[in-house]
Amino acid sequence: MTEPDHGRATGEQGADPDPNTEAVGRILAAQPVLVDLRPAGDVIPGLAENDFLHAGPPLAGWQEATGALRGSVLGALVHLGIADDLGQAAALAESGALRLLAANDYAAGGTYAGVINRATPVFVVENRAAGTRAFTALNEGRGKALRYGANDPETLARLAWLEGEFAAILGAAIRLAGGIDLFNILTQALHMGDEGHSRQKAASSLFMNEIAAYVLETGFAPGETAPVLRFLARNDIFFLPLAMAAAKATMQAAEGIPGSTVLTCMAANGIRFGIKVSGLDNEWITAPVPDIEGRYFEGNSAADASPVIGDSEIAETMGLGALAMAGAPALARYVGGTVDEATRLSLEMYSITLAEHTRFTIPSLEFRGTPTAIDVRRVVDQRRAPIFSTGIAHRTPGIGQIGAGFGRAPLECFETALALLRRR
Amino acid sequence: MTEPDHGRATGEQGADPDPNTEAVGRILAAQPVLVDLRPAGDVIPGLAENDFLHAGPPLAGWQEATGALRGSVLGALVHLGIADDLGQAAALAESGALRLLAANDYAAGGTYAGVINRATPVFVVENRAAGTRAFTALNEGRGKALRYGANDPETLARLAWLEGEFAAILGAAIRLAGGIDLFNILTQALHMGDEGHSRQKAASSLFMNEIAAYVLETGFAPGETAPVLRFLARNDIFFLPLAMAAAKATMQAAEGIPGSTVLTCMAANGIRFGIKVSGLDNEWITAPVPDIEGRYFEGNSAADASPVIGDSEIAETMGLGALAMAGAPALARYVGGTVDEATRLSLEMYSITLAEHTRFTIPSLEFRGTPTAIDVRRVVDQRRAPIFSTGIAHRTPGIGQIGAGFGRAPLECFETALALLRRR
Repeated sequence: MTEPDHGRATGEQGADPDPNTEAVGRILAAQPVLVDLRPAGDVIPGLAENDFLHAGPPLAGWQEATGALRGSVLGALVHLGIADDLGQAAALAESGALRLLAANDYAAGGTYAGVINRATPVFVVENRAAGTRAFTALNEGRGKALRYGANDPETLARLAWLEGEFAAILGAAIRLAGGIDLFNILTQALHMGDEGHSRQKAASSLFMNEIAAYVLETGFAPGETAPVLRFLARNDIFFLPLAMAAAKATMQAAEGIPGSTVLTCMAANGIRFGIKVSGLDNEWITAPVPDIEGRYFEGNSAADASPVIGDSEIAETMGLGALAMAGAPALARYVGGTVDEATRLSLEMYSITLAEHTRFTIPSLEFRGTPTAIDVRRVVDQRRAPIFSTGIAHRTPGIGQIGAGFGRAPLECFETALALLRRR
Repeated sequence: MTEPDHGRATGEQGADPDPNTEAVGRILAAQPVLVDLRPAGDVIPGLAENDFLHAGPPLAGWQEATGALRGSVLGALVHLGIADDLGQAAALAESGALRLLAANDYAAGGTYAGVINRATPVFVVENRAAGTRAFTALNEGRGKALRYGANDPETLARLAWLEGEFAAILGAAIRLAGGIDLFNILTQALHMGDEGHSRQKAASSLFMNEIAAYVLETGFAPGETAPVLRFLARNDIFFLPLAMAAAKATMQAAEGIPGSTVLTCMAANGIRFGIKVSGLDNEWITAPVPDIEGRYFEGNSAADASPVIGDSEIAETMGLGALAMAGAPALARYVGGTVDEATRLSLEMYSITLAEHTRFTIPSLEFRGTPTAIDVRRVVDQRRAPIFSTGIAHRTPGIGQIGAGFGRAPLECFETALALLRRR
């Protein structure tokens, strides 16, 4: 592990500054590298055939699964050949035969309502500064997608190709490349209008640039590799799970520091929003999911929206996403606000963080580092909870994405966390 | 030709609004498409073996060629096999055996001091709205490059591969693709921190995304195509000549409208800066080159700088480049200013243009269109000449790029042009 740079934390930590300085140092020292793409069962121990990792804190069981998550699990059961059709899949789910597990507790991340089974190919991202590893599934592209609860034949056919031939070729290319430095891509992307969460257009394009020659060198025929390159070229959100895994591998390094008030995880499961804090180890502190201020695709409205779900707020937890919105003016319109409003919101976040990132910088703020290391104490003191951006699915299973928007983590989680920290 | 949209010109044109409205309409209607890459001699008529197209207005001959241009021509003579070595090349040049021609007069553009011979592969860009075509040579990447006057063995070896195997493969891929819409790339790139001239990082990445699968489908072996993809992936200024050709094919459509005061060309040859105006047909109006406010790479200073040369100010002429700097905050540091200063300068440009572009928009200005169609009259009335960005070469032939900066076109050119327009 790299020594933390004690000069970089901007927060004053009172009598004993060490735990948060240590946490900040570990976050800033992270070096997440994409090293592999292979079935989750090969890299995440303990996954049985009927286990599904989902986003957010743990659910009590199938009865708590919201629409998009149900659509996703049922589609996955058919896709994986565990059920013959959606009806049989539903019967299986209702029977209680499935185990739903919080992905975060397995060093993994579920994008929106996406799920990970032991047969699901996952990116393997290694934080070389800390030896931590994190895992996320492939991104299927925009519109109808399993992660938004779509499970029609077209969605499942694309998924079959994506987790089959595509994953085999991309996995081979990643191994040939010998490791792809994900922060190298993210630092560039932040100078190209991305904020590292909901806008991944630059990062996806740069990733494609980096991997293309290796795809060609895998030895697969052009008839197989050309579709891989076309899919990568047309999927402007492909990098999202890579950013999530990079952030997860980074924040894992900051977990479990006694006395540290630094946030290490934010995620939602459609019912509850949950956070984790360094000094509280892996304990989930939850509250009901907050409402989202959304912008809806034509023909949809807030009444159609699924409650928020997803692990992608790990980006905000690391200091990207909504915290870096000042650098992503083109995203403001997509999530429904103005550039000025988005900038104002992200500037507010400096008041609840302990550091400015030394590698993630925002050109339009004269290259100021993004607000990094959210401090639970500061959040509570100022009664200002972190913001995050998110996609929005239809509440009915099987439909897919209907919009995107902004949310704010429940202050209640932070108040509870601080009370627990004080008790320790 | 597409009918101009009379509603779009924002300038008031007095008693007879038609000529400038027509010019604006043609600029906004342009649809430049990359259709081919082949030797200039195949597509530009009348080029003899010893002809070299250079940037800017015409030169009186070799004696007027500045350092970087000399380095470029001498290197090209060796590269093309016309001379055996640089000494023989210099003797040939001094003998008066070469013909130096202004690229702009041949619908072509020279990047900085880059030259085009009939054997030079050039991009062929067709403006499908007007039937105009424009031509530019391949970009060699940063650092030492023939276009900055470098001509050492390493530079020439790269050029041999680039204009040989690389051009053969990329040309085949472009023809397979059946036309690549360049404004589609530029409109996206403007939302990704590019300004369409000196920063081409996003556009180059997006171009690579679009062409990669076709490169693979050319039938060339992976051992030949992988280096092509790697070169494209690592050259973040590759798109510059494509942006230039797109702008040239666009501005050609606005040429020759009697009575129009719209600028159609700005370029420099190292001695003189030249402009062309729609209502003055293809007449060059020149003045001595202006000074550049530069930022120099370590170990260099203004004293080492070559006077400004290049046709890439065609980007500014169309409403990109320095006129769109508000959308490219990361570039401000590269050319030596602050983001605020760059934004202020580009906002000033709205006062000398007749329209706001309908496709090129700047997210950070809440998606305002870029200032488009520079009006010679407005420039003179306000005594405010257009700004442009540029690379800077060493004044000694053979060294290469030493910095980048901003310049302002000489007001004198605009005053002379207005006087000539009034005489007509």
